[in-house]
Amino acid sequence: MDNFIFGIRPVLEAIKAEKEIDKVLVAKNLIGELAGELFTELRKRNIPIQYVPVEKIGKITNRNHQGVVAYISPVSYHDIEDVVADIFEKGETPLIVILDSITDVRNFGAIARTCECAGVHAIVIPESNSARISEDAIKTSAGALFNIPVSRVSNLTDTVLLLQQMGLLVLASTEKAYNTIYGHDLKQPVAIVLGSEDLGISKQLLKRVDHLVKIPMFGKTESLNVSVSAAVVVYEAIRQRNFCAGI
Amino acid sequence: MDNFIFGIRPVLEAIKAEKEIDKVLVAKNLIGELAGELFTELRKRNIPIQYVPVEKIGKITNRNHQGVVAYISPVSYHDIEDVVADIFEKGETPLIVILDSITDVRNFGAIARTCECAGVHAIVIPESNSARISEDAIKTSAGALFNIPVSRVSNLTDTVLLLQQMGLLVLASTEKAYNTIYGHDLKQPVAIVLGSEDLGISKQLLKRVDHLVKIPMFGKTESLNVSVSAAVVVYEAIRQRNFCAGI
Repeated sequence: MDNFIFGIRPVLEAIKAEKEIDKVLVAKNLIGELAGELFTELRKRNIPIQYVPVEKIGKITNRNHQGVVAYISPVSYHDIEDVVADIFEKGETPLIVILDSITDVRNFGAIARTCECAGVHAIVIPESNSARISEDAIKTSAGALFNIPVSRVSNLTDTVLLLQQMGLLVLASTEKAYNTIYGHDLKQPVAIVLGSEDLGISKQLLKRVDHLVKIPMFGKTESLNVSVSAAVVVYEAIRQRNFCAGI
Repeated sequence: MDNFIFGIRPVLEAIKAEKEIDKVLVAKNLIGELAGELFTELRKRNIPIQYVPVEKIGKITNRNHQGVVAYISPVSYHDIEDVVADIFEKGETPLIVILDSITDVRNFGAIARTCECAGVHAIVIPESNSARISEDAIKTSAGALFNIPVSRVSNLTDTVLLLQQMGLLVLASTEKAYNTIYGHDLKQPVAIVLGSEDLGISKQLLKRVDHLVKIPMFGKTESLNVSVSAAVVVYEAIRQRNFCAGI
């Protein structure tokens, strides 16, 4: 079962106690002084709010929820700036994966599993338009989500800018690219942006990255599954970094 | 819905009309002259038979099934020897994927999708201990199973021997390997064996292949998903064959 708490006061207390909250469901008609305090805290901490009919909350719990349910994240989120600074401090070369609009929990879990296996330093997800780190995501990740830092940011474009300022090359993996992943030096500090199969990467983000790269395709099938794309791109970086004396 | 036919005579007719049959479910107590003829034909053509309680067949169809249901394959199977001969004749370098005990339909479909995208020439599966090419497999493959030749063989070890005799290097992707995939020349004619995550590749098959190869792992998670492994290995072959002037 997913971990959640309910009721305005308990949720407020959880927020103040710095619990990691994935998102809060709020009944559309919620008003009152305490509700106002809740909204202030939620916005201050950039916690995603989803406004739903009160009946939806009733389906999650039939106890006295007062129109508020908060999902507690099973993992702690990391600050991406701190993570990258730590990597440089250790003398390592950052390899970061940024997920844009990957809302499918299984794809998200599968990507986390591959990234943890490959030694990717961190995964960045947006606050909205991302899969939640649910029990299903953790299961599909084979537990990897407990072992790889995840950063949740309010704006991916700002994060790309920050990473570039910190010296990272930011690549976007997209079929729209002219060059393949095999023509780029991935030994340098690098972040790779991946988008969902249906929506792809947002135009705004595509404009901001340093290069577009693609995985070569030779068949009739339109696209690779996004978790497969992630694996091919990430392991090309691993190959270049560790096995370049090989073939 | 899956495509199936039922009744001893209709199934016999389908077999004689050379319909591609994935497997036949037969009630455990089935006897009689016509049943004898059916068994003879099934064995002659190496069609997998699964003996089940008659109630199981009753759940598939409530019509007069006479204890026999046959699943018609939505794709035609190819003879692996013909496929490889054709590849050589076209002046191409064979790249074949062999699946040992991949019974999970989603993994099978996902591997087929990746293989078709990468331009793998054919997928080899065993008659028993493999996922069936069901509607689910086709859906997960994003239709790729209609566009990549699939060979179904009675004995994978014999097939490996045959491929070696035809000049292919046969590699097995397994965590038990000492060398990584990056230390092998995949530009030559090659077949890659992949096993299921739980069972791996059978010992008999591991003894028969030319080399064991592994994907390097740097994390705490025990293994990669098999469809991810397939993608990493297949795309390393694609890289070596097409992009070796690159980095």
